[in-house]
Amino acid sequence: MQFTSADEHRQWLSAQAALPRGFRVGTTRFSFEPAEVPKRFFMNLTLLALARPTPDFAAVFTRNAFPGAPVVIGRRRLQEPTLGAVLVNNKISNVCAPGGVETSERLCAALAAQLGLRPGEVLPSSTGVIGWGLPAEAMCGALPAVTAALQSESILPAALGIMTTDLYPKIRRADLGGGAIVGIAKGAGMIEPNLATMLVYILTDIAVPRAALRQMLPVVVGESFNSISIDSDQSTSDTVVALSSGQVEGVAEAAFREALGRVCRALAEDVVRNGEGVHHVMKVTVQGAPDAALARAVGKSVVNSPLFQCALCGNDPNIGRLVCAVGKYLGNHHPGVDVSRCRMAIGGREVFAEGAFRIAPDTERLLSAYFRQAELYASAPPDAQGVFKPPVSWPPHERSVEILIDLGCGAAAGTVIGADRSHEYVSENADYRS
Amino acid sequence: MQFTSADEHRQWLSAQAALPRGFRVGTTRFSFEPAEVPKRFFMNLTLLALARPTPDFAAVFTRNAFPGAPVVIGRRRLQEPTLGAVLVNNKISNVCAPGGVETSERLCAALAAQLGLRPGEVLPSSTGVIGWGLPAEAMCGALPAVTAALQSESILPAALGIMTTDLYPKIRRADLGGGAIVGIAKGAGMIEPNLATMLVYILTDIAVPRAALRQMLPVVVGESFNSISIDSDQSTSDTVVALSSGQVEGVAEAAFREALGRVCRALAEDVVRNGEGVHHVMKVTVQGAPDAALARAVGKSVVNSPLFQCALCGNDPNIGRLVCAVGKYLGNHHPGVDVSRCRMAIGGREVFAEGAFRIAPDTERLLSAYFRQAELYASAPPDAQGVFKPPVSWPPHERSVEILIDLGCGAAAGTVIGADRSHEYVSENADYRS
Repeated sequence: MQFTSADEHRQWLSAQAALPRGFRVGTTRFSFEPAEVPKRFFMNLTLLALARPTPDFAAVFTRNAFPGAPVVIGRRRLQEPTLGAVLVNNKISNVCAPGGVETSERLCAALAAQLGLRPGEVLPSSTGVIGWGLPAEAMCGALPAVTAALQSESILPAALGIMTTDLYPKIRRADLGGGAIVGIAKGAGMIEPNLATMLVYILTDIAVPRAALRQMLPVVVGESFNSISIDSDQSTSDTVVALSSGQVEGVAEAAFREALGRVCRALAEDVVRNGEGVHHVMKVTVQGAPDAALARAVGKSVVNSPLFQCALCGNDPNIGRLVCAVGKYLGNHHPGVDVSRCRMAIGGREVFAEGAFRIAPDTERLLSAYFRQAELYASAPPDAQGVFKPPVSWPPHERSVEILIDLGCGAAAGTVIGADRSHEYVSENADYRS
Repeated sequence: MQFTSADEHRQWLSAQAALPRGFRVGTTRFSFEPAEVPKRFFMNLTLLALARPTPDFAAVFTRNAFPGAPVVIGRRRLQEPTLGAVLVNNKISNVCAPGGVETSERLCAALAAQLGLRPGEVLPSSTGVIGWGLPAEAMCGALPAVTAALQSESILPAALGIMTTDLYPKIRRADLGGGAIVGIAKGAGMIEPNLATMLVYILTDIAVPRAALRQMLPVVVGESFNSISIDSDQSTSDTVVALSSGQVEGVAEAAFREALGRVCRALAEDVVRNGEGVHHVMKVTVQGAPDAALARAVGKSVVNSPLFQCALCGNDPNIGRLVCAVGKYLGNHHPGVDVSRCRMAIGGREVFAEGAFRIAPDTERLLSAYFRQAELYASAPPDAQGVFKPPVSWPPHERSVEILIDLGCGAAAGTVIGADRSHEYVSENADYRS
């Protein structure tokens, strides 16, 4: 896809956004004053509701050792026989806040009472400032507004409601067998100071048994959301939830799984493309590896190398930094691996083989041009305070910088998606919270 | 120490720089045109020469799986009975260049002929662009000049000669038992585009047997240079060399080792303080860990967290990002660890305990003030191209931001030194090589 304006992108999103049967979504916005700071903030409350509670739900949560209260509760909810709604707030993540679990449970109970559900049928989800407590009174006060806003046409209000400082909403769909799988995502990177979360909600009307969904979701997440990295910082709140309303007859499990994988991979790439200050998306495929875990780890070493990230941002085809990032991981974690047959290519052009660079006189120029065609935007001049802001609020295209690393010592492969490192990222994350 | 100008810093360095007995150093500068690029560059050639070849030398090299030719040769040199000189060039690292080992050996042989040494008694060392070949003719032509420049007074010319775009030379010394240990360092981070190396040379006139030196150097390096990180990118050329001329009677091994450790830790901190775009040095001490490796890994997770690095740059005491970085490592690598007794403090002030923040109304203000007193400089406005350059070329002070993490689940500890992430870092590394 290619877009020339935010409007054009929004039109395309609207077409993606038709809700699967058996779901309603609503969102509302209200102001509040946190106990911690004497200042007014706005919060969005977003509700994803099922027409009937479903036993067919699955979730994958962050592995961070200090998970937020909603993650603690979410893990409990996996034991519940059915789930009827997901309540999401932005602005405060309810992580490391005293009494966070109790506050979240209180909100679930209040919403459940309004929707005729059991409290255990409501999954809470939060993203925002770490350390502050949720404004429970204000949130309870907003529940009637969010239930009144429920509609069954479009998931777009929810995709907008869960945003913090994402530049644009993210929606992906797959239609199959008379039904659909529709997913929305929020993130990634630190979206605003003190906040770091990826939240993903996947709704389908296609019947898929609880056990099958729970078996396939972690696998699909491993190939999609766990294969991306903006800044290597796994948040305390990362959550992927999948819900089936079961209103459309089931399809073959393999077909469902393929479609679910397609939605998740596309959303994962959207998350990277909308990462903070991202000028270039890079896809690093590592093949010829002894096993898939090593392939993915080498890929992550490349996409998380600050030096290679900075070079990519500057459209500088810095092969030395690519080789350094691969060698750093292998040398430190698998010193016995034979790298003598290792080859590397950028954009289909071989740049490294037999332990040395493969560069013709015009290689640098061609690679730099290749980087430029994949650039989402060039930096606009910083403001008077030296702060850089992205000059676009939509994804101009879906091109990536493709890097192939053949380790030449095995048959396994893996692909990791990452991004460059820019002034916009530093501006977004270094400016003192005002 | 505290300095108000580059001159004042240089005066202090000169006092540190008196050479141990039995060594001479020289440096020369010449221009050349690389085969790869039709453009003139300058190269420094620096020579560290012993009055007599010594059996008492040790070296530690990068673990990167794609080491430079000088590292390949350096590993061979460890087998030699004696070493007589170290020849260092900047500008080209001789990594991944066809025939790199042969070129380096040819230079060693040419220098050996001039100094009356065997070729195997010369250790080559290079830092600079990866992928280009060394300009062997031009370098051989400069050998007479570098030997003519040898003097036995000061190591400062060598500390200057090995610099690339380091802001200032780095020298540390320890005097003991009538002799001295004097070390110089170059690095760290990507010092200029396409170049990533830390080089360290430690000279002593105190007699220390080869076996003892080789036993203690890796241990000392582990506690110093391997406990720092600017950007997690381990270069293809990192090298630490220690040479003893043996001209002063030996001291107790424990005393020598303590002094060597002091020199290395101070140099390692200098390397961080002079890292690209570093505004703040941070020292992360992790205690209460099950073992020292885990303590160091948690510390590295904090100093390498892009989000925490950016917050520190902005003097933003973002406790959530600190907790996130600790939890990310523990949750992914040691999911079984009990973190319920984990406590964290910044600048001696407790900020996290019992799974929640510990913040009083004025905590943020006090922590931010604490970050500001440790700031080396604030960003100067960028130039017309949006490029940020450090406004100082000397270390204004030696203050750090001290972070204490008590995991509460063991007795081991470790300290890691790192730095923040700034616009100056991105400018240094993202701007296209011109």
